[in-house]
Amino acid sequence: MTELFDFPKVDYVGGKKGLDFLDTKGYNYYNPDEEFTINGETKPMKDWLKFSVAYWHTMDQRLVDPFGEGTAVRPWDVDGVDDMEDMDHALAKVDYLFEFMDKLGLEYFAFHDRDLAPQGRTLAETNANLDKVVDKIEQKMKETGKKLLWNTSSLFTDKRFLAGGATTPFADVFAYSAAQIKHSLEIAKRLGSQSYVFWGGREGYESLLNTDTKRELDHIAAFFKMARDYAKEIGYTGQLLLEPKPKEPTDHQYDTDVQTTISFLQTYGLEKDFKLNIEGNHAYLAGHKYEHEARFAREAGLLGSLDANMGDKQTGWDIDEFPNDIYESSLVMYEFILNGGLPKGGLNFDAKVRRASFKPEDLFYAHMAGMDTYAAGFRVAMKMYEDGFLEKIKHDRYASFDKGIFADFENGEGSLKTFEDYILHKTNDEIFDKVESQHLEAIKATLNNYIYSVLGPTFN
Amino acid sequence: MTELFDFPKVDYVGGKKGLDFLDTKGYNYYNPDEEFTINGETKPMKDWLKFSVAYWHTMDQRLVDPFGEGTAVRPWDVDGVDDMEDMDHALAKVDYLFEFMDKLGLEYFAFHDRDLAPQGRTLAETNANLDKVVDKIEQKMKETGKKLLWNTSSLFTDKRFLAGGATTPFADVFAYSAAQIKHSLEIAKRLGSQSYVFWGGREGYESLLNTDTKRELDHIAAFFKMARDYAKEIGYTGQLLLEPKPKEPTDHQYDTDVQTTISFLQTYGLEKDFKLNIEGNHAYLAGHKYEHEARFAREAGLLGSLDANMGDKQTGWDIDEFPNDIYESSLVMYEFILNGGLPKGGLNFDAKVRRASFKPEDLFYAHMAGMDTYAAGFRVAMKMYEDGFLEKIKHDRYASFDKGIFADFENGEGSLKTFEDYILHKTNDEIFDKVESQHLEAIKATLNNYIYSVLGPTFN
Amino acid sequence: MTELFDFPKVDYVGGKKGLDFLDTKGYNYYNPDEEFTINGETKPMKDWLKFSVAYWHTMDQRLVDPFGEGTAVRPWDVDGVDDMEDMDHALAKVDYLFEFMDKLGLEYFAFHDRDLAPQGRTLAETNANLDKVVDKIEQKMKETGKKLLWNTSSLFTDKRFLAGGATTPFADVFAYSAAQIKHSLEIAKRLGSQSYVFWGGREGYESLLNTDTKRELDHIAAFFKMARDYAKEIGYTGQLLLEPKPKEPTDHQYDTDVQTTISFLQTYGLEKDFKLNIEGNHAYLAGHKYEHEARFAREAGLLGSLDANMGDKQTGWDIDEFPNDIYESSLVMYEFILNGGLPKGGLNFDAKVRRASFKPEDLFYAHMAGMDTYAAGFRVAMKMYEDGFLEKIKHDRYASFDKGIFADFENGEGSLKTFEDYILHKTNDEIFDKVESQHLEAIKATLNNYIYSVLGPTFN
Amino acid sequence: MTELFDFPKVDYVGGKKGLDFLDTKGYNYYNPDEEFTINGETKPMKDWLKFSVAYWHTMDQRLVDPFGEGTAVRPWDVDGVDDMEDMDHALAKVDYLFEFMDKLGLEYFAFHDRDLAPQGRTLAETNANLDKVVDKIEQKMKETGKKLLWNTSSLFTDKRFLAGGATTPFADVFAYSAAQIKHSLEIAKRLGSQSYVFWGGREGYESLLNTDTKRELDHIAAFFKMARDYAKEIGYTGQLLLEPKPKEPTDHQYDTDVQTTISFLQTYGLEKDFKLNIEGNHAYLAGHKYEHEARFAREAGLLGSLDANMGDKQTGWDIDEFPNDIYESSLVMYEFILNGGLPKGGLNFDAKVRRASFKPEDLFYAHMAGMDTYAAGFRVAMKMYEDGFLEKIKHDRYASFDKGIFADFENGEGSLKTFEDYILHKTNDEIFDKVESQHLEAIKATLNNYIYSVLGPTFN
Repeated sequence: MTELFDFPKVDYVGGKKGLDFLDTKGYNYYNPDEEFTINGETKPMKDWLKFSVAYWHTMDQRLVDPFGEGTAVRPWDVDGVDDMEDMDHALAKVDYLFEFMDKLGLEYFAFHDRDLAPQGRTLAETNANLDKVVDKIEQKMKETGKKLLWNTSSLFTDKRFLAGGATTPFADVFAYSAAQIKHSLEIAKRLGSQSYVFWGGREGYESLLNTDTKRELDHIAAFFKMARDYAKEIGYTGQLLLEPKPKEPTDHQYDTDVQTTISFLQTYGLEKDFKLNIEGNHAYLAGHKYEHEARFAREAGLLGSLDANMGDKQTGWDIDEFPNDIYESSLVMYEFILNGGLPKGGLNFDAKVRRASFKPEDLFYAHMAGMDTYAAGFRVAMKMYEDGFLEKIKHDRYASFDKGIFADFENGEGSLKTFEDYILHKTNDEIFDKVESQHLEAIKATLNNYIYSVLGPTFN
Repeated sequence: MTELFDFPKVDYVGGKKGLDFLDTKGYNYYNPDEEFTINGETKPMKDWLKFSVAYWHTMDQRLVDPFGEGTAVRPWDVDGVDDMEDMDHALAKVDYLFEFMDKLGLEYFAFHDRDLAPQGRTLAETNANLDKVVDKIEQKMKETGKKLLWNTSSLFTDKRFLAGGATTPFADVFAYSAAQIKHSLEIAKRLGSQSYVFWGGREGYESLLNTDTKRELDHIAAFFKMARDYAKEIGYTGQLLLEPKPKEPTDHQYDTDVQTTISFLQTYGLEKDFKLNIEGNHAYLAGHKYEHEARFAREAGLLGSLDANMGDKQTGWDIDEFPNDIYESSLVMYEFILNGGLPKGGLNFDAKVRRASFKPEDLFYAHMAGMDTYAAGFRVAMKMYEDGFLEKIKHDRYASFDKGIFADFENGEGSLKTFEDYILHKTNDEIFDKVESQHLEAIKATLNNYIYSVLGPTFN
Repeated sequence: MTELFDFPKVDYVGGKKGLDFLDTKGYNYYNPDEEFTINGETKPMKDWLKFSVAYWHTMDQRLVDPFGEGTAVRPWDVDGVDDMEDMDHALAKVDYLFEFMDKLGLEYFAFHDRDLAPQGRTLAETNANLDKVVDKIEQKMKETGKKLLWNTSSLFTDKRFLAGGATTPFADVFAYSAAQIKHSLEIAKRLGSQSYVFWGGREGYESLLNTDTKRELDHIAAFFKMARDYAKEIGYTGQLLLEPKPKEPTDHQYDTDVQTTISFLQTYGLEKDFKLNIEGNHAYLAGHKYEHEARFAREAGLLGSLDANMGDKQTGWDIDEFPNDIYESSLVMYEFILNGGLPKGGLNFDAKVRRASFKPEDLFYAHMAGMDTYAAGFRVAMKMYEDGFLEKIKHDRYASFDKGIFADFENGEGSLKTFEDYILHKTNDEIFDKVESQHLEAIKATLNNYIYSVLGPTFN
Repeated sequence: MTELFDFPKVDYVGGKKGLDFLDTKGYNYYNPDEEFTINGETKPMKDWLKFSVAYWHTMDQRLVDPFGEGTAVRPWDVDGVDDMEDMDHALAKVDYLFEFMDKLGLEYFAFHDRDLAPQGRTLAETNANLDKVVDKIEQKMKETGKKLLWNTSSLFTDKRFLAGGATTPFADVFAYSAAQIKHSLEIAKRLGSQSYVFWGGREGYESLLNTDTKRELDHIAAFFKMARDYAKEIGYTGQLLLEPKPKEPTDHQYDTDVQTTISFLQTYGLEKDFKLNIEGNHAYLAGHKYEHEARFAREAGLLGSLDANMGDKQTGWDIDEFPNDIYESSLVMYEFILNGGLPKGGLNFDAKVRRASFKPEDLFYAHMAGMDTYAAGFRVAMKMYEDGFLEKIKHDRYASFDKGIFADFENGEGSLKTFEDYILHKTNDEIFDKVESQHLEAIKATLNNYIYSVLGPTFN
């Protein structure tokens, strides 16, 4: 079989090939077979960190932006064009995906239905096109052992979805969305997808003036129930995941952030059936840190999967950059560890190469950088976890609640009166004497020390 | 009785005194006795728009900012100082409040416990100080018929609350908070406060690194349950309200926005006991429009009261400006109308005069401007409501769901299969033909026409 | 000649056709022949407000967004496609432009070179294509009397510009940019364009890490000098304008905002040769109000033209919405009036219909709404200007500088010592007594009164 | 002499005391006597990194915020109060400053006039108070060899400055500002201050409606000229520095960012007399990265000094946090190195401990953390500088401009015609073949490798 990408297989080199990433062509921190133990469970790194390649960004993305045409140069292009209207072309690209994964040592991938094959004149024809590519993917999966992290339906690209998919005011478009999702769930079942993701990119509003928000939310909740029921009916056992984002392309997306999405799930009694897929750049757009969203999803028992990307906190749109921030990867991986990993989820690179990184090799560099950033963050977080660094701080901080009427309170007893009796005659000074400095400056400086001390030896 | 403020009584002049607000000294849009009918209920404007003066901003605020000392000149100052350590002084200020309300025709006010009287050496002493001022307020309320819109406890000003009130890690501070709230609820009961508000200004985190977010949320939920139980125990029948804000002074406040707060209430089973007090500037800080927050609170049945202020969408902190934006007041009043008004709530001016508007008369101008902005917005919204302008747009937009399998779907029937059968063989063109232009440009232009046509005649 | 657009001619109706913009199909505030006098100069409204249609948004924009394909339905489409590779098609569209302008009573238009015709295999071929369309435009201009407000070159759409046009690190791309601009200046000369605009959408950096910012700025400054010299050489007498924007598509655009661009011009000695084209949404992205940018450009003597659009201050990307905010249009028009209008500039609608306003009639509604918003704002601003409302406030505010050592100071005399002598022994209280309240609340309320009183009578 | 602070002397321990910053009580990266060579000049680290303690944050800051009173506990407090009205107290605090500097090995400090001593009834009295403290400082400086990095006047704290200091509309306030600055320059001269800083915190506008921006800018420019002339007159040879910030406390500060401030200086012919003091958190508020501001100041030859602090890019106000971000410190130090250090400037910690870090020891921890963050960043930047890592990338990137007509162009020759001749008949493909991938992902990954490899060995 001929080599499709002109790039060598990427192995763990552990800092032995120098600092310049362009020369290295190996992983400094991602060592797939190195074992790590979380909460008594020992697995190799590759089974903890289930990195996934995103079909849309890596196989389809032409690197357009709102002010410019695509710049991408791809080995599957014919005369500089990725001819997605041609089924043969669509099928040929599958081989590229699997070689790409093989060379990087990636075991998972993810896709939208519309990433794979062109639309036909009707949904029936569209599904037929799709199924041919799925057939080939199924066969390649069997041959290679590669796995599908998640799949999803695009209810946002086609012009019919201009006012939403499940929340559209146009009944036929709604019907189309429902039927499209049905087929995607069938594909999820067939390919053994670990999760199925709903990103409601256009489920939101352009303006409150013309939007019946209540009716739209009722619609989408019922839509999710139908999806859940159908998954059950066909025996699909993967996770169903919602993916929060506050806006873009809508002015307001209903699944704004983790807690807004939880509110929605609770309002409609769906919190047992759906979990969340959390993305870094989406967190920023909602005014949050990525680790905040991971924390609140985790504590609600809803952390299903992670989209491993980053943005720029001073840029107001989704840039889907490959991760390179060690602070963020360390803190997100810390939540990941406290979550016991992501049994049915993973780390999907919902990330694209920069528009000026338009050559095929950049697809490799970007994934390598992203994997090393998260593998490095995982190492830092594991060391903090093993040392109990942050857990000890948290434990000690609330220790005054571990006894007496405060422990009783944590057990559901006591009343305002209990506390009034206790405190009414204590002096202000006595009370303030119990207040301790939080010395956050020192905690953050210690986090820096963890990063340097865990990651530095690789190179020395 | 001597006049305390050198400012005339403010009456409705209805545009008859010219354009310059400084000369007018009357209301152009706020006509207290003019009647309006919402949903069959007819009441004078003053009973719909229950404007309230905020003790903290109007009586206590010295107009400091993070880079400068107070500039306020107030008639109750002694040698340029508002000596709040002196009980006589604290008592004297009550008279100013009531004259201020009287001159403006305001019927409601609101306060934090710490606004009224100085702290003592212990909570017992602090409560005693507070009670003396409350005694005087109670007597003035009887004499004048003025009413308390809401009261609250300050669990954020004193240094003991540096890491929170109900979510503090320090048990004694927690006890203090509980006891303080207890007394405030007793005052609410005694003064017949229409609502009791919890703004958790320091209930959030400074850093995720040292915060046990789960434990803190468990604490505050149990704290709210104790408050609810105590309110019931003493027979207090006002609304209990949470007030969302995303940050400031904390880096993250748990009650981030309406939907996050709803998620919290639902998680802890508190959604029947608490409603929301929504503030304009807080909405902006959370990345929302004020009318968005009002809408989502209303549709959840949780719109309890409104803090009538505004900010600057390009300024990243809470500026608590008096309202002057007719777009915002019209759209918030529209939600207000659809809510049937605010039976136990009102429009509290959680707003302060600008630091350079430091003279006593500015307190009058600012309230007049705020009242006229909301009275004008109310008139615009009433006209749109009476014409059915926006409701017709919304009704027509979703009309395709009013029949057949779509109506069935809204009634809880149908499945993905139902819709697949319906849509599978329709062509893409057939489906897109049903999609209608939303022509939002025209809707917004019509909104402008409503504003001009409703408000213009006042002056002409 | 057959009618190309199924929309009636739009005339001034002055509020006589009701509130609903969809029914009106006329202007309520834009009365082209009504005369207004600024600074002694009397002209009809149409000659003050030189509204311009943007070729790219109105003739070419397919209403794509980063997550979805185009939705636009246009009368020139063939089988739902705007086939811009076909020269006949490109030529045919010119007729639509001129009928569109005629029906709306618009007298000006604006375009980028790449809006008009397809690229060829070389720049020579590309120019030949372009010239054919320009020939037709020139002929239509003669026939109709319509005028070109400004033209420009697109140095950002083609993939060759991925790292900039004038600041690209690739010499051949730079050469291409220079040659492209040359031809555009020739077109400006030939069509009598009132201005020529440079928007450096990709003249900035993606990262400081790999950017020699100094060298790039030297390049673009020299590039502008060549453009200026060539304009002079061919006798082009229109304005040369830079258009500030802080980012998007770049992470940082060098022409960040008005004052940054002025700094650039001054650093390279170009401030006599270039003025500015200011856009509303760009101002927001830079953290400013539109009127701020207009003010600072005006006071520097550099306000050349206005892009009349708006955005959403809570949205972090350029949405190019048609204007509908009366506050903004009034305050921008106020600066416009103080500028004596825009002799060689105008009000170009760099604005696109919303993606869900995809029908041809929406192009009309949107321009009508935008024109009425600015015509209304102009009326409000004229009244404030005629009354001297704001100028009197400003005059009185600084009156203490009009005499004595302060007037001397304004005339260039005095020293720190002069003021020390004057103030050293005055008491703090004496000094603060001279400080006056700014009562900004009342000023803003008066602005509201102006809006209502000027615009309301139209409908009543 | 008794020890004033209960904290040991802080020395370089170089990673030998473990990871936990609370235990360490030593520097891991700040090694004052280790020598480094920049551009041929060899100096010990302490002479490159002239860290400075800020009097206002460390000696005076009570840790108030807009919603809460001060929490600070300081060894100089009397009964929990820092009695700044008492001259003896003000004098006593000077001893604490010098011991603090001595224990940390800090050689520089900075202050505002109003930090040191209370105001009197007149400026004459105020100056007399100030001079007494300055006398003591002068004596301590002689004894210890400590130096003043910069001093400044507070023209923003007192209420008289509510509408500005040099841009106030009130003549007497202006006179006061001028006289106050005069005395501060005299102090700068007397104490040998390396720089004198102007931060125009209130030199901006609250609203454009009532502001004559042109007149205010004329005033402040003339004010700066008087200051420059007086500095010259008294023989003060330190740098005069402006400090950009976009807003807070004003709605708009005239010295918005580096390039806006340069525009101001150029407009008034002041660019030879003033340089800039750049602050991290201010950069964020202006929408920039800290390294962006440092870069543009450096390339304009105006990088005078650095305020070493950081903020939170998702927080809209100035939090003045001590630095802990290694990415930022590395990239700012890289600009510092290319600037040849800061001959008359330094790294002033315009940073305050968090409000919950209220104990005296936190002042030590915070400075230690800040110094180590910048010393670590300096080490990373030095290694990149020595390796030529980034300079080689930049050099290669623009290499196509190094010859032929492009080199001529850089030398001021050529015209649009030159480039048209060169490019007109080249094909699009030929041109795009010269465009190279920027592979920014790999560059950022290499930066990470530099950080880990340079800093890691400290701990291992």
